[in-house]
Amino acid sequence: MSIAIAPPHSPLRAAPRRAVAPLVVHVGVVGPGKVGTALLTQLRLMAPRLASHCNLELRLRAVSDSRHMWLDCDDEALNGRSHGAQTWRPADLDEFAAYVAGDGGEPAVLADCSASDVVADRYAGWLAAGIHVVTPNKRAASGPLERWRRIGVAAGASGARLHYEGTVGAGLPVVQTLRDLLDTGDELVAVEGMLSGTLAWLFNRFDGSTPFSALVREAHALGYTEPDPRDDLSGMDVARKLVILAREAGVALSLEDVEVRGLVPDDLAACSPDAFMESLDALDAPMAARLAAARAAGGVLRHVARLDGRRAAVGVETIEPDHAFAHARLTDNVIRFATRRYCDNALVVQGPGAGPEVTAAAVFADLLRVAGAMGVKRCAC
Amino acid sequence: MSIAIAPPHSPLRAAPRRAVAPLVVHVGVVGPGKVGTALLTQLRLMAPRLASHCNLELRLRAVSDSRHMWLDCDDEALNGRSHGAQTWRPADLDEFAAYVAGDGGEPAVLADCSASDVVADRYAGWLAAGIHVVTPNKRAASGPLERWRRIGVAAGASGARLHYEGTVGAGLPVVQTLRDLLDTGDELVAVEGMLSGTLAWLFNRFDGSTPFSALVREAHALGYTEPDPRDDLSGMDVARKLVILAREAGVALSLEDVEVRGLVPDDLAACSPDAFMESLDALDAPMAARLAAARAAGGVLRHVARLDGRRAAVGVETIEPDHAFAHARLTDNVIRFATRRYCDNALVVQGPGAGPEVTAAAVFADLLRVAGAMGVKRCAC
Repeated sequence: MSIAIAPPHSPLRAAPRRAVAPLVVHVGVVGPGKVGTALLTQLRLMAPRLASHCNLELRLRAVSDSRHMWLDCDDEALNGRSHGAQTWRPADLDEFAAYVAGDGGEPAVLADCSASDVVADRYAGWLAAGIHVVTPNKRAASGPLERWRRIGVAAGASGARLHYEGTVGAGLPVVQTLRDLLDTGDELVAVEGMLSGTLAWLFNRFDGSTPFSALVREAHALGYTEPDPRDDLSGMDVARKLVILAREAGVALSLEDVEVRGLVPDDLAACSPDAFMESLDALDAPMAARLAAARAAGGVLRHVARLDGRRAAVGVETIEPDHAFAHARLTDNVIRFATRRYCDNALVVQGPGAGPEVTAAAVFADLLRVAGAMGVKRCAC
Repeated sequence: MSIAIAPPHSPLRAAPRRAVAPLVVHVGVVGPGKVGTALLTQLRLMAPRLASHCNLELRLRAVSDSRHMWLDCDDEALNGRSHGAQTWRPADLDEFAAYVAGDGGEPAVLADCSASDVVADRYAGWLAAGIHVVTPNKRAASGPLERWRRIGVAAGASGARLHYEGTVGAGLPVVQTLRDLLDTGDELVAVEGMLSGTLAWLFNRFDGSTPFSALVREAHALGYTEPDPRDDLSGMDVARKLVILAREAGVALSLEDVEVRGLVPDDLAACSPDAFMESLDALDAPMAARLAAARAAGGVLRHVARLDGRRAAVGVETIEPDHAFAHARLTDNVIRFATRRYCDNALVVQGPGAGPEVTAAAVFADLLRVAGAMGVKRCAC
């Protein structure tokens, strides 16, 4: 900071002229699965209010899945009705992005609602071209460091934004909260989290009255797990979230650096999903033993992710009964930031950390943050 | 939303030229008390990083308290050293704002760290003049609706921003979280909060082993209460926070609309602070009776703020022992948003909700949000 050289008694500056024309933002959605579809529904619902209250006009230009894309979306698409005269074309992400960007006269935002590395590979190019990206896709922020750095360079050079709040806690305010802490000079001491709703549900329920395998089968039947429950039990999805938080805090961590203590026995790691479901009972004896040990120590079992300095670990732990993690319910995620300022008591964010609607809302809020960076006002006053 | 008319195969838009010159933002701080001083310290600490990482140059131009102002701040001021050749002048908020704004060539942000209605009275004029305001001062957002509406009109007309995250949970992400929920189409069902760190501490400690009056005296001695503890015990500060959240959710509530069940007996409401402290024992019998009733019902006592539709209430309640409020610690605030999306489990933010450093950080983060709206990038990638 330095002394500003200006006359000390200059008049109040003139009010900037408010643009009467709305800000038009071109939107493209990649991955119209559950999250993408929820996002399209939310965009449709909120478009009139954003236009009238925020002078923001969101124009859905295109939707793409991994095989097809649909350019030239219109109100029919937003209203979820027939595709009309539109035709699906073979997907081509470059053509898709170019179409969304149009002639460059309006800002363009791509919402990547896929979970694909192929799409994440395009971020750097899109950002370099001035196209903003908002996404709950964990691949870029937790994938190869070299790609992540290229993405950062591209965004830095063009000024285009990448927002990814939805990657860690879905709709919970986690990434931005950490960003605000760090950018205002706080120092991260540790992050401690229950970052899997599925694993939270399993350990909230696992009290010894029902074998662990039966709970996994129940969660699977309820749709709480991935189609292959090993994708949850392995802890790798949680590890990805921890890598994202670590990088946000300036720790250049890779997935391989995380000490992941998974719940899938080695001899069941490679079999078919069906064979795994049939062999689930193999989890029961070791999990019963862990529960007994936790109880003998006066605690409860929880699946916990920890970042402490550069050390990142994910696995089942015995937790004291008066710890916040012991009181979480259902599929709640819990994220605790211990910082220099939040030292006696941590800053805690808690709530459901998965689901199409809340994840789509995180993408939508990121999109509004991009619009905010272009002058769109959002406040109640 | 509407059909965008543009050629379907236009090339990727040209990358916007990144401005090499940093964004310069003029900053003025009103109210250099504990929060204002902490903010000045944080600004000084983070200025080099913001300049190098975000291409943002914050220029502290002036500081004002209620009686004096100090124009033409420089590095000496930021370094907390002597005031050098600078002279304090009699405070004049108009002259102060005009000085911070300078010739209007650079955006200006006033950080109101006072708790003053006199300063809040100026917001509308400042915003109309294109000067942004960031503040933890609750007066504007919880004060007369007519003034709040004038502030909104002024900001709407000029495009200048008013951010006030620090008014409810200090550094906790509360106002922006609610904003994101609503702007992405969620619907607020209820807000339930422990919004006073002082009252949280008192009821966390009040287990019958120590009279309530002794805990109030202890909190007073520890500096946990306001100089006159009635300012906490009355519940009015909590009621202000609830009004702010209600207005954020579009409910045009005033302080008089909140049903406040205070802890100060009527006959002690008007006496001197010293006389009140000497009469504290009068609280003991009624509070002991409340505690006994709560225990008979199997619950615990907590000071709770509730917003349910248009109904807003603040007071001591009996809470179930497995409720999140029963497990809060020390001076933690807890805010639970129950919404259409967060219906089974609420979205919960918890942590210390007071203190100069975390409150100043909220003001600083708001300032960075204003800078973000002018194109300053903040992300780890």
